[in-house]
Amino acid sequence: MSYVRQMLDSYSPALAVDAGLLAAAIDAASDCAQACAADTDADLSEPNLAEMVTCIRLCLDCTDICIATAAVLSRPAGRDLSAARLLVGACAAICQSCGDECERHAHMPHCRVCAEACRRCDRACRDLLDAWH
Amino acid sequence: MSYVRQMLDSYSPALAVDAGLLAAAIDAASDCAQACAADTDADLSEPNLAEMVTCIRLCLDCTDICIATAAVLSRPAGRDLSAARLLVGACAAICQSCGDECERHAHMPHCRVCAEACRRCDRACRDLLDAWH
Amino acid sequence: MSYVRQMLDSYSPALAVDAGLLAAAIDAASDCAQACAADTDADLSEPNLAEMVTCIRLCLDCTDICIATAAVLSRPAGRDLSAARLLVGACAAICQSCGDECERHAHMPHCRVCAEACRRCDRACRDLLDAWH
Amino acid sequence: MSYVRQMLDSYSPALAVDAGLLAAAIDAASDCAQACAADTDADLSEPNLAEMVTCIRLCLDCTDICIATAAVLSRPAGRDLSAARLLVGACAAICQSCGDECERHAHMPHCRVCAEACRRCDRACRDLLDAWH
Repeated sequence: MSYVRQMLDSYSPALAVDAGLLAAAIDAASDCAQACAADTDADLSEPNLAEMVTCIRLCLDCTDICIATAAVLSRPAGRDLSAARLLVGACAAICQSCGDECERHAHMPHCRVCAEACRRCDRACRDLLDAWH
Repeated sequence: MSYVRQMLDSYSPALAVDAGLLAAAIDAASDCAQACAADTDADLSEPNLAEMVTCIRLCLDCTDICIATAAVLSRPAGRDLSAARLLVGACAAICQSCGDECERHAHMPHCRVCAEACRRCDRACRDLLDAWH
Repeated sequence: MSYVRQMLDSYSPALAVDAGLLAAAIDAASDCAQACAADTDADLSEPNLAEMVTCIRLCLDCTDICIATAAVLSRPAGRDLSAARLLVGACAAICQSCGDECERHAHMPHCRVCAEACRRCDRACRDLLDAWH
Repeated sequence: MSYVRQMLDSYSPALAVDAGLLAAAIDAASDCAQACAADTDADLSEPNLAEMVTCIRLCLDCTDICIATAAVLSRPAGRDLSAARLLVGACAAICQSCGDECERHAHMPHCRVCAEACRRCDRACRDLLDAWH
């Protein structure tokens, strides 16, 4: 069991949402931030650099938004729900765009792995938004 | 003139928005992130700690969202506009909530300064959103 | 296998270090950032708030340093090794301090879990530093 | 006067260092993070992309380390000084490397501005380290 889930179970704030959904979103956003940071580096090592520029740009934004999302979701007590909803929506949106772009380069293993991480985070964010509504 | 404005003027990407509005939002988000980080520390130094908990929680979320917003806005070329709009909306929302809470403690100079930083960032984000629509 | 390890295996930059050690440090820093963010929130929910202030302060610094460390380590190609070494050293140092403080509150399950995350990250950073020397 | 200096003056923690030096380092790190994020974007817009890869890599690390440094320095009360020293040292080191690389491209206005931001942050970090010793 991840630390995230253990933490959520250990102090039981009023989550206004299932702890499993919340933990899944935190883990997915944190993993996606790492995958996108690594994919940026891998993209920069490719010979056909000009074709990777859009992928790099999306990975950079995806990293930053995923990091903020994981941090904000990790502090569930006394949350400002309207800001959190917009942030999780932004995270789903950038993961969708970044996942689409990475999939176009899926013949490169680093982009295929990154696309997977983006898809999982996109889904986890949308599941959380559904549960919040 | 801030580095931000000099950078935007120096390479002129297709901004889809006035460079002044964009630079104002980047500067305001960056300043607000700093003010909120410092206000967290100042709140934790107050004797009436229980009264500061909501303020601390909002400042923490505000810091993280402002940092992501400043970073994403600083890379305007080839932007995914739908994700950026949601992120800037989240930034305005958390700055409004955090500014409201800090204003309730405006007799403490550190919360008064932080409220100012939140108000300025809230406004700059909303100006940018208006221009994007 | 984590995304991190898959990414490192997929494009094989000249790592100047064993990929397993590097992946372990990235995963540990990313997990520790999440645990510390959640522990901050849990600490703020405790009734004896005054006793938690040192723990909150250390968790905040630990979160920020772990996030930077995970991001920088995730981009291994063409690294500036002198800056990376100091950063990983800072990460080990804050994880040690934060782990010590969390251990003092180990009767609270959230601090016990956070102490574990800090210990693991401290060790992974020191293993990486040993391998780099 | 920046928000940072107003914040530091407003609650007067035991800083163990001159408030002006501390505020200068926070402002310089925050400005440098923004300049490096913008320079990454500008570099990615250059036609001779292969020549910009080292600059992009250094700017990415510099952004992340500067953000962590600004955040940690903004919370001066009750600081873990050994971790902070290593972090500020890492910040000076990456600013030096990134400034050197940007200076090699100083015929591009965006790299010239970024080099300035790196130099200022490098100096502010070293001044702070000198005062801490």
